[in-house]
Amino acid sequence: MNELITMAQNAKEASYKLTGVSSAEKDAALEAIAQALINNTDSIIAANNMDIEKAKAKGMEAAMLDRLTLTPDRVQGIADAVREVISLTDPVGEVVAMWKRPNGLTIGQQRVPLGVIGIIYESRPNVTVDAAVLCLKSGNAVILRGGSEAIHSNIALMDIMRGAVESAGLDPNSMCLIHDTSRETAAEMMKLNGYIDVLIPRGGAGLIKTVVQTATVPVIETGTGNCHVYVDSDSDSQMAMDILINAKVSRPSVCNAAETLLVDEPIAKEFIPLAVQKLVKKGVEVRGCKKTQDICSVEANVKPADEEDFYTEYNDYIIAVKVVNGIDEAIAHINKYNTKHSEAIVTNSYAKAQKFLQQVDAAAVYVNASTRFTDGNEFGFGAEIGISNQKIHARGPMGLKELTTIKYIIYGNGQIR
Amino acid sequence: MNELITMAQNAKEASYKLTGVSSAEKDAALEAIAQALINNTDSIIAANNMDIEKAKAKGMEAAMLDRLTLTPDRVQGIADAVREVISLTDPVGEVVAMWKRPNGLTIGQQRVPLGVIGIIYESRPNVTVDAAVLCLKSGNAVILRGGSEAIHSNIALMDIMRGAVESAGLDPNSMCLIHDTSRETAAEMMKLNGYIDVLIPRGGAGLIKTVVQTATVPVIETGTGNCHVYVDSDSDSQMAMDILINAKVSRPSVCNAAETLLVDEPIAKEFIPLAVQKLVKKGVEVRGCKKTQDICSVEANVKPADEEDFYTEYNDYIIAVKVVNGIDEAIAHINKYNTKHSEAIVTNSYAKAQKFLQQVDAAAVYVNASTRFTDGNEFGFGAEIGISNQKIHARGPMGLKELTTIKYIIYGNGQIR
Repeated sequence: MNELITMAQNAKEASYKLTGVSSAEKDAALEAIAQALINNTDSIIAANNMDIEKAKAKGMEAAMLDRLTLTPDRVQGIADAVREVISLTDPVGEVVAMWKRPNGLTIGQQRVPLGVIGIIYESRPNVTVDAAVLCLKSGNAVILRGGSEAIHSNIALMDIMRGAVESAGLDPNSMCLIHDTSRETAAEMMKLNGYIDVLIPRGGAGLIKTVVQTATVPVIETGTGNCHVYVDSDSDSQMAMDILINAKVSRPSVCNAAETLLVDEPIAKEFIPLAVQKLVKKGVEVRGCKKTQDICSVEANVKPADEEDFYTEYNDYIIAVKVVNGIDEAIAHINKYNTKHSEAIVTNSYAKAQKFLQQVDAAAVYVNASTRFTDGNEFGFGAEIGISNQKIHARGPMGLKELTTIKYIIYGNGQIR
Repeated sequence: MNELITMAQNAKEASYKLTGVSSAEKDAALEAIAQALINNTDSIIAANNMDIEKAKAKGMEAAMLDRLTLTPDRVQGIADAVREVISLTDPVGEVVAMWKRPNGLTIGQQRVPLGVIGIIYESRPNVTVDAAVLCLKSGNAVILRGGSEAIHSNIALMDIMRGAVESAGLDPNSMCLIHDTSRETAAEMMKLNGYIDVLIPRGGAGLIKTVVQTATVPVIETGTGNCHVYVDSDSDSQMAMDILINAKVSRPSVCNAAETLLVDEPIAKEFIPLAVQKLVKKGVEVRGCKKTQDICSVEANVKPADEEDFYTEYNDYIIAVKVVNGIDEAIAHINKYNTKHSEAIVTNSYAKAQKFLQQVDAAAVYVNASTRFTDGNEFGFGAEIGISNQKIHARGPMGLKELTTIKYIIYGNGQIR
């Protein structure tokens, strides 16, 4: 019996105890966590410094280093985020539907925690707290496996959280961190059927792919967003431009940013040169289809876009542009190349808006709005554990409700079949 | 590019077309299927005879042979089942929730088909029609992979259905059958990420396990039910007996049948000998814990139950019996040994009923009713594609709603972030 299985058994037991814990008790534990994080700021930062020094010695790039770094302000921010979770409604116990059968059985669907959630993530230590806290609020035990770069920070944060959880009278095994960051242990974790009820990977495309290929426990795939903005011939040109620029450049590194612009042929000659000009001004490299290149002047410096470009989530100041022959080609292109994340049409046509909403295969489909709104906070969920781009269980931003499942509760008075 | 991938691509394309098909058009296709099945009864039975002869030559046992056999009556029954599906409400298009954000965005959650559903099943040819028809009604394309024993029947049924679907103006690739029944092709099917949106295995524990271990596409695990009846000290003895006998012997081969009886200590001496007597009279072999053996007379012939018995889904006229010290031990036993399927308590205590409902980890938890009700028809869903005993996406009986997912549809008027 190795350490990982012992941890998983402990988490499973803790998950059963959590089914008997009230919202008020969970909130008290969360408040204890927030307070303990602030009280232990110094030791958190000391542990974080060990990670930072190791990362510097290894030559980690500045942006990554910044994401790894904790400061007193950032610890305060993490504690504030815990308190925001306290203010959210506990989804557990909600009876979603209840009906009576002809034989007198009363059947209800009640929201219950999933049980034990496994989360595999990369370097940012704040995810350790965010994820653990969302799982506890929704009554789940959690097993975290973070990246090796943040291991000292993660151990410090987890020790503080477990102490706080215990001080609030709950089982500290409600939250567990795998200290061994080897790939072998991660692979073993992905196969803990019977212990882990669902595994949520958070990170880059490589991590997600590894988990999908390796895991035998159910996985909720998160992540990659190859999102499109389609500008219809019948649209407000200024609105289209605003949405395009917002979707591409407001934060190019995130999954809900646009990667490809599709333009309806009749307005291509008018819209594309203007769009390219604005995009280039914002520092965006434009890669166009043959028609786009023909339309644009040589000075516009539009590079050729090949098949691979249309499949690529750049996460960067790069955009692919393609002229399409109407909404049907736009929808076909999107359904072929997208990652089922977020897709937008800009149109004044009622019929085309409805068709796009109906036929585009994605978690979030927008009419006349930026793809950038696909986010738990923007949707009004208050927090999110990730954005699902698979179809089963949860689609799009996952809030607390998506960390629960349904149990049928059935009240009888002696019914037999 | 092999045949399987071509089939998967065709199914994917068909699934996109299905998003534009109305309920009335789908129902017309289903009616065409029902009619075509009846019109082609002779050719179906001729194909089925080929399977039967092969099975007989291989020495297939009588019960299996019976499940494989089609008769004119059975074909009529299959067609009738198709017409029952027509009468069900189409879940696609339902807007489950819709809300307006402070920025004016209107966000709705709309039920949409999953896309392409893969189903791997064993010998019964009626599943070919049942599964295909439920998928079509819910707007999904389906790729079926049945057992080799029924391959001629399956091919005949699928050809007839595809012809009917096409005659009704829909894409025949909405329904596909893999003709090659090799394990290699099945394994390849389980890894068709990007084509198959969800895989549902239907069959014995061995099949389910292989799919869970092999698949990289999302799986909804169905099947095994190690179900318990717990008789509390404060309960109606006659009701407890009726529920126990119904749960164990009304149909022992199915997943919602009881496999273990748990009896609260204070009533063990009174209840167990009576229960054993009734069970033995019904032909049930009783395997008891030490206390159960001590309570029962030697004539009762109670065999010893070991750890393995408590983990076993007998699917047969065998039951394990254990005396427990109160509801907490009952719940702990159930959560340790069960397969998260269906669990029942018989009690007059309000507090214990509530505790059992809250703390038992299972898809369906019953108070004072038989576990045998876990079934799509009994729950009022009209039909079921299987019973999920995993926690994500769907739990318990899966009807048409469980064959859909959610899409966020977002109506804006130029919002940017």
